[in-house]
Amino acid sequence: MSGTTSFEPRTGSVAGTIAETTNEELTRILELARSAATLLAASPPTERSAWLQAVAEALEKPVAELVEIADRETALGAQRLTGEVARAAGQLRFYADVAAEGSYLDVTIDDATVTSPRLVRVNRPLGPVAVFGASNFPFAFGLLGNDTASAIASGCPVIAKAHPAHVLLCERLAELATTALASAPAPEGTFAMVAGYEAGASLVQADVVAAVAFTGSQIGGLALWRMANDRSTVIPVYAEMATVNPVIVTRGAASDMATVAAGFVGSFTLGAGQFCTKPGLLFAPRGSRAAELVGDALVAAQPRPVMLTQGIASAFNGGLGELIDAGAEVVRSVPGVDAGWSVSATVLRVPINSLRVGSRFLEECFGPVALIAEYDDVAELRAALLELPGSLAASVIVDDDDDPDSGEIIDLVSGSVGRVIVNDWPTGVAFTWAQQHGGPWPATSNPTATSVGAAALRRFVRPIAFQSVPDNRLPAEAQASNPWRLPRRINGTLAPGT
Amino acid sequence: MSGTTSFEPRTGSVAGTIAETTNEELTRILELARSAATLLAASPPTERSAWLQAVAEALEKPVAELVEIADRETALGAQRLTGEVARAAGQLRFYADVAAEGSYLDVTIDDATVTSPRLVRVNRPLGPVAVFGASNFPFAFGLLGNDTASAIASGCPVIAKAHPAHVLLCERLAELATTALASAPAPEGTFAMVAGYEAGASLVQADVVAAVAFTGSQIGGLALWRMANDRSTVIPVYAEMATVNPVIVTRGAASDMATVAAGFVGSFTLGAGQFCTKPGLLFAPRGSRAAELVGDALVAAQPRPVMLTQGIASAFNGGLGELIDAGAEVVRSVPGVDAGWSVSATVLRVPINSLRVGSRFLEECFGPVALIAEYDDVAELRAALLELPGSLAASVIVDDDDDPDSGEIIDLVSGSVGRVIVNDWPTGVAFTWAQQHGGPWPATSNPTATSVGAAALRRFVRPIAFQSVPDNRLPAEAQASNPWRLPRRINGTLAPGT
Repeated sequence: MSGTTSFEPRTGSVAGTIAETTNEELTRILELARSAATLLAASPPTERSAWLQAVAEALEKPVAELVEIADRETALGAQRLTGEVARAAGQLRFYADVAAEGSYLDVTIDDATVTSPRLVRVNRPLGPVAVFGASNFPFAFGLLGNDTASAIASGCPVIAKAHPAHVLLCERLAELATTALASAPAPEGTFAMVAGYEAGASLVQADVVAAVAFTGSQIGGLALWRMANDRSTVIPVYAEMATVNPVIVTRGAASDMATVAAGFVGSFTLGAGQFCTKPGLLFAPRGSRAAELVGDALVAAQPRPVMLTQGIASAFNGGLGELIDAGAEVVRSVPGVDAGWSVSATVLRVPINSLRVGSRFLEECFGPVALIAEYDDVAELRAALLELPGSLAASVIVDDDDDPDSGEIIDLVSGSVGRVIVNDWPTGVAFTWAQQHGGPWPATSNPTATSVGAAALRRFVRPIAFQSVPDNRLPAEAQASNPWRLPRRINGTLAPGT
Repeated sequence: MSGTTSFEPRTGSVAGTIAETTNEELTRILELARSAATLLAASPPTERSAWLQAVAEALEKPVAELVEIADRETALGAQRLTGEVARAAGQLRFYADVAAEGSYLDVTIDDATVTSPRLVRVNRPLGPVAVFGASNFPFAFGLLGNDTASAIASGCPVIAKAHPAHVLLCERLAELATTALASAPAPEGTFAMVAGYEAGASLVQADVVAAVAFTGSQIGGLALWRMANDRSTVIPVYAEMATVNPVIVTRGAASDMATVAAGFVGSFTLGAGQFCTKPGLLFAPRGSRAAELVGDALVAAQPRPVMLTQGIASAFNGGLGELIDAGAEVVRSVPGVDAGWSVSATVLRVPINSLRVGSRFLEECFGPVALIAEYDDVAELRAALLELPGSLAASVIVDDDDDPDSGEIIDLVSGSVGRVIVNDWPTGVAFTWAQQHGGPWPATSNPTATSVGAAALRRFVRPIAFQSVPDNRLPAEAQASNPWRLPRRINGTLAPGT
């Protein structure tokens, strides 16, 4: 039997191995998911909400144990990982609440008129969702992260692939979730884990799988997206992929460039720069000494980053080389430690007029590196901003609310990102009703979707209209008596749920 | 200069030719759309609403002239086309109202808390939309149909390709729309038409185009979808394509099979069977004599269909041949007239156990043909229904509200369609708040989208979250004072717009 092995990033030694899912096991998992899909689609959101609460509780009990396993496999540190367990539990509870509230079902009723029949439109779960979690957030964007929580909340069973970088953690998380769901009790097949590349690929190709959610590299996301597009029945792929996440410092904000530089270094080296929201490109006015000050702040910070995997470390070193080959000038580089998968943290300077569509400078380099570009005036800045590819987020550092440049810059960057932040850093993604964690290609494969926040549920449902269907034959969420007490739109007017 | 020529379906003679769009013209059209996109994104929905009202009025003035041109190029008949002009105008007004109501913007505000920053999330227009209208509804799903109306309503400029089957009508419609929009006054570039295959392909590849909407054949839809997926910046394609639209007659409803048969024939031969909602496959209990009765009803109806184009007529004849080669038995065939692109209307019988994934019987044959399959019991019916590909709609013909079979059948078919109809036919798609005109692949390229109904606007917007952005730097729809009087969700609670 073949297995998937994880390693300890700090030393490079083996952390552990788990068995890969066999074809027979996968067949059974898919069958269970198929059966569960029918039961989940008929379950009231309040029930699913209780299941997710049970998973959240199960996560919070063995925190020390989970953090120990995760730290061994990721080297992200106990403090950060402890916070991340709490975050993952909080997310599960948040999506539970969003499900129970029921707005995501978009219940819409048009009574019959002289010219049109009675129509009731509700969102129904798509069916089993294949989840491919991220390496860099083993709890919050991992096996039981945003994708899994929002998919189950919306009534879809989840089959999640164990991340090869933290297989021991995945195995333990799957065990916790399966036990918690069984005792909730959620139907068998509500959640399952698979392991191994083959099982992951089979999942995306399986008839019973109705959607794919992915968080990770552009190479990985594109591979799954292409695989799903090659199916005879194409299914939606929600891939969160590559993103540059620009930061723009206005002329007014450049007077305190040293403070900005320190904050920027903190953000782009956080978690060894392995954040999908890492700010990768900073624009500052020429004369602000931005590059030098960021370089100084990097030296002062001495981050000593250790990457999650050998593959990520080597991709980072390769990417850094490509950036330098493409003409980026090294401002400062702080060497890593001489063990495991440590790398140098680096600040590069690039000429602003080299930032054009197709430039290597406008592709993500995942890890602790950032590019600095200086602009002469707003016209030069504007030209560069219009060249930027889609990103998850952009930060605009302004002087005050009346900074004369901020309006145009916010408007410009909002054209290519999912979130615009003023006077703060893009790392840190609150899970609330108004959050948007997405963006135009190549940041994600679907600019209308979000993988964090209440709207994350909407990725996994599709609307069905019931025309002249007798009330007793409608699904519960569509019935006139509103047994689930959902917010509804009736004849064009919104009505609250209770 | 090359041109696109349309023909008169009744005779096969040339109707007219319009010039194809040159590269220079296309460049200018794209530039105008780019400029208009910024202006439209900043325009209040009530303004865009007024523009659409102006287009609706412009359509209603020269009805007789429009119908005359359309009838010459489509042979759909003056009565049907007159109704369709009214429908198209009604749609423009409906989407105008939906825009003004503003729910589609999903304004969501989370005030800052101890743990999370202030976030305001609003839907913003994607940018210029390329619209490829249908041949079979030159008004309602054509140049100024649902896609164009909902895209402009949502704040996106539209560049619509003239349909080669009705180029004279397209030219006149574009003229009417352009004049009406200019005097509304909408910004220049809000709407433009292009003509010719090359211009259409360039449109899908153009950087400035942010989304594609298509209604037509699977071949056409897939070609555009692939082209968009091959872009360096992939964009959403909303293609409404191939659909079988099953009809299921329960055992209880089979007692009046003659009436059902007459209704079915009326629906599948409507508009020469050239409806995306044409019911193409009828399931009836064995012993109901469904095939014979549908055959008799077809002979009684004598539809004499004339197809829209030579290409559609020849694809229909080819498809009919494929169905017969695959083993379908001809129950009855009523020959067309001996002129132009007339074809035979045909009823075929197929063994229910041949309806399996991959069968030719489960692919659309666009035109006046329907398949009849008979089932022994609900178990046999269930097995067949689970094999069906995605469809736009399914009709279930039941005895009464307590028909014992209806619950399971409605539930089963709802798994593969966008709309379930009881005791009525799928042809006829009301444009209301609750409508859903979509469905799983291959019915559409995106199961979460609809091309008819209020939610059609949502295809053309994407959410952006503004984090800690000063109120005076937010777009109007996101400002605390709510200048556009939009419905909003504030800290999780829905609040009406006025």
